[in-house]
Amino acid sequence: MRGVLDIPAHLEPVQAALAAGLERVADRFEAQLATDIPPVARLTGHVERYRGKMLRPTMVLLCGLAAGGGTDLDKALTDEHVALAAVVEMVHMATLVHDDVLDEAEVRRRGQTVNAMTDNETAVILGDYLIASAYHLCSSAGSKQSTIAVGDTAMIMTAGELLQLAHRGDWSLDENTYFEIVHRKTAALIGLACALGAAASRAGREIEAALRTYGERCGVAFQIQDDLLDLTGEQRTVGKSVGRDLAKGKLTLPMVHALQSVGPMLRGEMLTLIEAAGRAGSAGETDDEAVARLREIVTEAGSIEHARAAAERLVGDAKNALAIVPETPAREFLQVSSDAVVDRRF
Amino acid sequence: MRGVLDIPAHLEPVQAALAAGLERVADRFEAQLATDIPPVARLTGHVERYRGKMLRPTMVLLCGLAAGGGTDLDKALTDEHVALAAVVEMVHMATLVHDDVLDEAEVRRRGQTVNAMTDNETAVILGDYLIASAYHLCSSAGSKQSTIAVGDTAMIMTAGELLQLAHRGDWSLDENTYFEIVHRKTAALIGLACALGAAASRAGREIEAALRTYGERCGVAFQIQDDLLDLTGEQRTVGKSVGRDLAKGKLTLPMVHALQSVGPMLRGEMLTLIEAAGRAGSAGETDDEAVARLREIVTEAGSIEHARAAAERLVGDAKNALAIVPETPAREFLQVSSDAVVDRRF
Repeated sequence: MRGVLDIPAHLEPVQAALAAGLERVADRFEAQLATDIPPVARLTGHVERYRGKMLRPTMVLLCGLAAGGGTDLDKALTDEHVALAAVVEMVHMATLVHDDVLDEAEVRRRGQTVNAMTDNETAVILGDYLIASAYHLCSSAGSKQSTIAVGDTAMIMTAGELLQLAHRGDWSLDENTYFEIVHRKTAALIGLACALGAAASRAGREIEAALRTYGERCGVAFQIQDDLLDLTGEQRTVGKSVGRDLAKGKLTLPMVHALQSVGPMLRGEMLTLIEAAGRAGSAGETDDEAVARLREIVTEAGSIEHARAAAERLVGDAKNALAIVPETPAREFLQVSSDAVVDRRF
Repeated sequence: MRGVLDIPAHLEPVQAALAAGLERVADRFEAQLATDIPPVARLTGHVERYRGKMLRPTMVLLCGLAAGGGTDLDKALTDEHVALAAVVEMVHMATLVHDDVLDEAEVRRRGQTVNAMTDNETAVILGDYLIASAYHLCSSAGSKQSTIAVGDTAMIMTAGELLQLAHRGDWSLDENTYFEIVHRKTAALIGLACALGAAASRAGREIEAALRTYGERCGVAFQIQDDLLDLTGEQRTVGKSVGRDLAKGKLTLPMVHALQSVGPMLRGEMLTLIEAAGRAGSAGETDDEAVARLREIVTEAGSIEHARAAAERLVGDAKNALAIVPETPAREFLQVSSDAVVDRRF
């Protein structure tokens, strides 16, 4: 979150505690991946550069602070919080590495992807190595319940990815399935991060469940906001992102809604445009005309507004879930963060 | 092991206990993979057909019996033994699914591979789903120590696969590196299976370590025997398997030994033959002449004998490790099984 949010002055101590915690997480992450096998060390060294905003570890720490409820921020975060934050980031990074193989991506965070730098084989196994490291660290440093939760979430995520692959190019995708995929692929891990933070603070089942709900709702809202930014940005960017999604057979929420709500004539036109935009995307090009017309139809169908309202409702739900969490600066930080999910423009 | 070994009559009760245990393992395996998401259910249903000899789960059960030391074979195997046996098979199956992606294999156990039936993307994620399921089951049903051991072994295995990939096409591979790769890729999981069986019988550290050593030594011997069968079978089969290995840049122990021990002239000839056989293998063909000459050089260099002696020494070590295990029919079954590793002709 650092640098991403405008933080009110009275929340700066929380931000400082998070920054200090994240440094410990980075060290734990590196220590867990340390190996005396040179080719493995080269790969894990490369992958550590993927670490960006550290959103998920931040949620572990922040929910750890909020669930703890104390005011001594400097001592609130234990080694268990730090280890579980590293675990969640490792799981996330493993999915990035495997996603890059699936997407045949060549660039991530201005560096080469593992699959582009080496080959798909190496990228598949490196992802497996990261997952194994995550489980090893979790079972060593976390409680039995936390370890089960990590395995459970990994099952939810991978089943969600399989569900999405099964619906690739399914232009009749309904909203329920869309939400199930997003819940599984994006929201479950953020919810897990929040729950693990609470669990490491020994906050009790109720607060743990509330923070998990907070994380899950924010996670879905985050994805919808991504969907919206993909469709409402500048023409050039929009053509690229829409074409890429459609080439992969993926629908965003506004598209799902429009395809389900327009009449048969417009739906037919949309399908033709989708094919054209996807074909261009597959060839690494953009069909600006098709995308512009799609955007027009989607906007006129009220689907942009529909998606925006859904995201705002989810953020509202996330904030409501915080009601039973003790009123502390850390809780306020969570509230501010959830607003930022739908306010962001990037 | 069922059907693979000639079992002396007095060991039949052990075999019956294993057969009954394996049925429970199959049920536990299916229950863990059960899902209400149809596309995921279709895939896990397909993959369950991969289950073959169930070597690794058998080792969990057999070492559970041996470490327990009791004579009431019907009651010796607990739900924990059964769950851990399913875990080990799930880890193994995940590696098979990812290996098939790496090898672009199309057939496994007379059925299509997942990657051939669907696509590489689905196969990668299905492997991830199997791994997640394995960790979930292990952390739910096993002890903290067993869960850590599974994570640890998965790190050892994946790092070994990365090490092997880094040495692909390295015709100067030395024996130490060969053994490190085999230890990691094959032996570690069999050792884990044995150790988990002992742990679930609460046998104590010493017996657990002894049975792990037994499993690891048998595992390395098993791989060397595979290497030997690849090179000493009928001309037609040999041409195929040698060509396939070389096309993938993989060396077997006899080849490693020969390349390190022949003089510079013969080594040069070997490298030329290796290139030719690998090129044919890449094209799905065989270069029988090159392979026949390779076999001749390797045999004359004493490398077949060298590998055979290594395998036999390892089986001897495995049996020695059993010395501290209580003398029961289950232990005798372990002894007979280790002999079978080097006696097998398939």
